[in-house]
Parts: sequence; structure tokens; C-alpha cells
Amino acid sequence: MAEGASLAIAQRSLGDPAVDYPLWPPLTSGCPRTSTAEIAYPVEVDYAYDKVPDGLFAEGPGRSAGLDRWAPLLPPLAAPTLGEGGTPLVEIGDGVYLKDESRNPTWSHKDRLNRCTVSAAVGVGAEGVVVASSGNHGASAAAFAARAGLRCIVLTASDAPPAVRSFVDAYGAVVLPVPVEARWPLMRQIVDRLGYHPVSNLTVTHTGHAFGPEGYKTIAYEIFTEIGVPAAVFTPVGYGELLFGIWKGFAELRRLGLAPRVPRMYACEPAAGGPLAAAVRQRAAAAVVPVGPTSAYGIACSVGGHRGVVAIRESGGEVLLVSDEEMAAARAELSRHGLWVELSAAAGLAGLRRHGDVDGPVVCVSTSSGFKDLSVGSHVLDPVVPTWEAVTRRLRSRGITV
Amino acid sequence: MAEGASLAIAQRSLGDPAVDYPLWPPLTSGCPRTSTAEIAYPVEVDYAYDKVPDGLFAEGPGRSAGLDRWAPLLPPLAAPTLGEGGTPLVEIGDGVYLKDESRNPTWSHKDRLNRCTVSAAVGVGAEGVVVASSGNHGASAAAFAARAGLRCIVLTASDAPPAVRSFVDAYGAVVLPVPVEARWPLMRQIVDRLGYHPVSNLTVTHTGHAFGPEGYKTIAYEIFTEIGVPAAVFTPVGYGELLFGIWKGFAELRRLGLAPRVPRMYACEPAAGGPLAAAVRQRAAAAVVPVGPTSAYGIACSVGGHRGVVAIRESGGEVLLVSDEEMAAARAELSRHGLWVELSAAAGLAGLRRHGDVDGPVVCVSTSSGFKDLSVGSHVLDPVVPTWEAVTRRLRSRGITV
Repeated sequence: MAEGASLAIAQRSLGDPAVDYPLWPPLTSGCPRTSTAEIAYPVEVDYAYDKVPDGLFAEGPGRSAGLDRWAPLLPPLAAPTLGEGGTPLVEIGDGVYLKDESRNPTWSHKDRLNRCTVSAAVGVGAEGVVVASSGNHGASAAAFAARAGLRCIVLTASDAPPAVRSFVDAYGAVVLPVPVEARWPLMRQIVDRLGYHPVSNLTVTHTGHAFGPEGYKTIAYEIFTEIGVPAAVFTPVGYGELLFGIWKGFAELRRLGLAPRVPRMYACEPAAGGPLAAAVRQRAAAAVVPVGPTSAYGIACSVGGHRGVVAIRESGGEVLLVSDEEMAAARAELSRHGLWVELSAAAGLAGLRRHGDVDGPVVCVSTSSGFKDLSVGSHVLDPVVPTWEAVTRRLRSRGITV
Repeated sequence: MAEGASLAIAQRSLGDPAVDYPLWPPLTSGCPRTSTAEIAYPVEVDYAYDKVPDGLFAEGPGRSAGLDRWAPLLPPLAAPTLGEGGTPLVEIGDGVYLKDESRNPTWSHKDRLNRCTVSAAVGVGAEGVVVASSGNHGASAAAFAARAGLRCIVLTASDAPPAVRSFVDAYGAVVLPVPVEARWPLMRQIVDRLGYHPVSNLTVTHTGHAFGPEGYKTIAYEIFTEIGVPAAVFTPVGYGELLFGIWKGFAELRRLGLAPRVPRMYACEPAAGGPLAAAVRQRAAAAVVPVGPTSAYGIACSVGGHRGVVAIRESGGEVLLVSDEEMAAARAELSRHGLWVELSAAAGLAGLRRHGDVDGPVVCVSTSSGFKDLSVGSHVLDPVVPTWEAVTRRLRSRGITV
């Protein structure tokens, strides 16, 4: 494990790069100086790039080190690892790769973010963390908090899917099922009155935690050590933190003189909503949109954030709106490759299929496992009478020659 | 990726090591020469150990190569990889490590076995594979078959848990829910009449597939490259293939002069059954026992096999019978470390706790994710009124100072 001290030196505003802040305390409500009543601007972490150790990217993709391998380019990793990161790239077609984030400790990409956010909570000496989430983010925060010996409060929707209810409740967090509209006011109170460290969003447009998206940079680092810089990366987008983190990782590799360019970043949003598509269309810093019905609950966001806009603009990328049918088709395509993903996680491949072939290697990011889906836990199988006749009838109906 | 051609040269009987067979076809019903009406003896794979490339074990634990890194000491890997193996070792206490097998492509250790069994099916030119399983094994076989472009028939129990029903059905296999007692006769017919390649057991005591347990050796290889030879390995045991595979991997490292000894192998069986415990107690080659009620459905086996007896005998190990309560306590202990495991998967740690501390590093193998459990999909959360008063009452009841 190539470990090293963090080279993080400051927090810098995405509203105005000239505006910076000390590294501590981490800003959990974006940039106070540039944010307005309509738009909250996130901050990112700045590093002493001139001090990055030679050879940090020389080795192949080691997987056991977790994020610690990349410690110099991450905020201080004060919370213990669960062996997050180091997920495989699975080739699913000629030059098309799936980055399988379901191979993380809680089986989603969120573990990369929460290693960093819970490390921030440890760094500020918080007694616990609080998160508003009905799925991957909440369970991941609960897992890293438990690992770090911190309390965790999860404000979850009363109607969370059955399998996800078990999941969020599994790590000893205090899970509070409340109506969606009650989640953010309660979170604010838990932060203000109890001093818990927030690891999900608190602002009018999305800013989230300053340190969180830094964890997603490691996806870019891993892809780079395995196949170099792909032509394009297709990513499911909710708030756009994952999209931004992957873009920033490649941008850092270019800044360090290791990569000649960054890949085009394609943001794949559910057509039922699409706050990033709206922001790009309106040339706005961020947008808020109504969200129609969709089963892609993991990325069905009404509130967008400025990070996604930056990643699209700086990479010459695009936003693609994908329907539930397109995501379902992409999920079915992946199942034929032996990969079972959450519907939201199929948005990346759905985006590629909508866009059409790209000249050069392409990475689609799959964020999470099929176990996370709403349908799981209510699945019915059609029983068969255990006679050879009945069985062969069933086999024939499925195209098996008998 | 350190790849290389397979050095597999033959199949050798565990009933009589002097009895061997050509490598092809893989024996899927054990050793015909030494098996009797009461005891079926498995076969294992033999290799040209004198040709193992120097430095195969020199590197640290790479995780992206999948099993291909170890190709010289595995049967020919004709089926494509899903990036199986390379799972992290997570330290959960002073010198106690959890080998987290939930980090495989279908989130269980079975992926290591099925990469090998489906490769065998490809090797013999079978049109498809057939498996009797209500869980991890069936879904993993379906995933690797899909990846290899083979058909897959899964004979599953009609009463499979909800989340698992979705899982086995996810990879396009033909899933046939039938009464448990009908599974093996139907499997036999599908093998004999349709020529499908069987990847689960067909014999009176367990033999399973000749190539399958070879995949589990890679767990030993990975542990060795990361921490050397531990004092002991505690493993959940159903049929004992995992226990045998891990033991064999260390035995090969000793044979190659790389390891001074093998770890003591501790077989952790559900107290409700325990065919390996019975075989060891009776000094028998294998045993069949009644199975009482247990929620550890993944390892609740009535039929044992000779592989487990060999691993215990040759490693100076022991069988530990663990109750559902002990497994539940171990699962709860792991959740406090941020790890959510299937009840069966907690048997390894439950065995360590029952045995008591060991002098030297210990590895407990956790086979699978908490999502695989019966309770998942029927989980209820206690809603809370979204007022600060109601919330603080709930928080106090969970020991949070408000």
C-alpha cells in the first residue's frame, strides 16, 4: 500500500476560484461568500500539487489498498478504511468497459465519498454524523461511522424499498423514517442543536460536503492506471458529485503532466427530472426542476448543483436524459454479461446507447448492485410441477432444445 | 496481470491419491474407482508444480486481475472473467482479519468456484450448465454462464427468500422452482438427457465438480501475498469445498517452498446440522446428518463430503458447531465494524469467538453480503413523527444525548 500524508492545503470556491478558505473546518454548506439565495456554490479541496510523490501513478491498479493508496491527493483519511475502491473494470464490448462500483464495502460508489466525509467528521471531533438518504448514501455513511466509532443518524423516507430498509438499518445507525419534506429541516436541527457532522446536502442548490467528491477522483486514478485516458466516461448523475469527482481526477492527472487530456464527461440523468440538463440548457450555475415518476430512485433529483456544470463545461461533455425504459434495457444488456445492477446504475450504459458509439475506449460507471432496487424483496418466481414433462415444457418455452 | 497457461495435468482421487485420471473430461460425480454406495470420493486437480513461474507470488495483492493472475495453478480458465477474487482483508481487531468475499461479482465466494466450473463447461463444449441452488451458487453460476454465452438452468427451492429470488432470476437463467427433494433427480435428467454440464453435486456424499474448489485456492494465495501464513483460518462450512480449497492453496505454497506451514483450518458449521463434525467424530470419510431448524440456509447441509475431512486432518484443525444465536452475535459484531454479512457468512467469526483467541494472526472468511438473507425484503422500520420533540425522544431512547 503506497500511503502518504495528505497534501490538501485549502478549500476553494467553485463560485469564484479566487476565493479560498482554510482546509479546516470543512464547509458543509458550500461557499458562504459566493452563494446567493438562489444558487449555492460548492467548494472543492486544493492540494500542493508540486509535492505529489513521483510514481504515485506508476504501479498498476492495486485493489487492496483502498483509497489510502491515493492519500496524498485526498483530504486527510482520519477514518479507518473498509477496503473501499479498487473496483474492477469489466470489458463488456469492443473498447467498452464497465467500472463496477457494486464491489465496494457497502456495494456502491458512495463508499469512496463517505471514507472522506466521515474522515472529516473525525477530523473536527464530531460525536456523530447525520445523513438524509433512503439508500446507498445513508447505509454507506452508517458503515463508515460505525467503523470509526461515531454515532450515525439516518433520516430516511418512510417508503424506502424493503431490501434497502434492511440495509440502512444494518450498521447500528439511528434510522428515522420521516416524510421526505421533513428530512432537511430535521437534519439542520440535528446539526445545529446536537453538533452532528452533516454528510449530505443542506443548501438550496446542491453543495453537499466539501471533502466528499474528492473520494470519487480515485475512480479516475484507477481507470488511468489500468487503461490510460478513455475517450469518454458515461456516468449516472443525481447531484453530479460523482461526475465532478471523476472529471477532477483526470484534470489533476493532466495538471501533473501524466495525462494529455481529460475524457469527455457524459452526464446521464433520468428523463423524469434532469436538473443538470436544465442548468446547461439555461446556461445557469445550477437548476431546480420538478421530478416526474421514475424507478431510478437513486438519481431522481429535483435539485442540481454547480459541480456537474463545471464537469460538463470543462470536459466538452454533454448531458443525456435517459428514460426508465432505456435504463431497463441497459440493465438487461448488463445482465447478459453477468452483471446485475441497480436501475439507476444502468444510466451510464443507457447514456452510451442513446449517444451511439464513441471513437476510442469508453468507460460506463455502474454505481451499485441490483439488490438495491425497489423490486427486490417482492420478486415472484413461477413454480413448475417437478415432472420431466412439465419441466421440458418450461424449458422449450424458454428456447431450450429438448 | 500476471497471466499464464494452466499447469493442470490430471485429476487425482481423494479416495486414493494413487488413483488418477486425465484432466479432461472433468469428473462431476467424484471418483468412480474409489466411491462406494455409501461414500462418494471427490477428485482434485493435480499440476506440474515444478513448472510454476518464479515470482508468481512475489507481487502484492493485485485485485484487478481476477483469478487470471493465478492461472498456472488453476484449471484452464476458458470462461471470461467478471473480475472475481482479489477481495480485501479488513482488520477487525488485533491480528484478526475478515476476508470479505461479498466483494465478488455476484457478492459471494461462489464466483471463484464458478469461474472454474463454467470454464470446464466451455472446455467440454457444453451448451449450458445446470445447478441446484437457492442462492449464491445458483446466481453465480448463472452470471458466469451468461458471461460465457452459455445457457443456465437453476433448480431452486420454491420457498427461496425474496431478495434471493430476484437475484437468481437476474442473469437470464431458466429458473425452475421445485420442491427440494425433486431438485437432484431433475438435475440428473437434465445432465443425462440434455447434456448440460452440472456445476453442483450429484452424489450420495458431496463431491461436486472436480474443478470448482480449485478456485477457492486463490483466497489462500491472496491472504499469503498480503499477510503471509496466518495461525488459523475460520471458515463457514456447508459442503466443505471452501475449507478444502483454502487449505489446498496453503498446502501448495508449502509444497512450493514459499510457506513454512499451513494454517490450522477451523470448519464452522451450523449446530443444527454438522455433517463434517459427525464425520470427524465418527472417523468417517464423510457423513450425512439430519438438519434441524436454522436461519443459516446458505450452509445448512445434511450431506457432507470428504474434502472437509482432509482439510481438518491435514491442517491439524477442528470443527466448531455454532448456533444461530452465535452467528447472529458475530453478524452484529461485524456490523459495528461497518460490515453487513449474511448470517451464514458470520459463521467464521462465530467459530473464532466460540474457540477463543488464537496466538498469531487469524483470518475469518465472510462468504457473502447481508442482502442475501431471508429477513431482507421484509424489513420494517418504526416511523417517527417529524417533530423535534418526537425525534429527540427517539434519539434519547437510542442513547444519544440531546
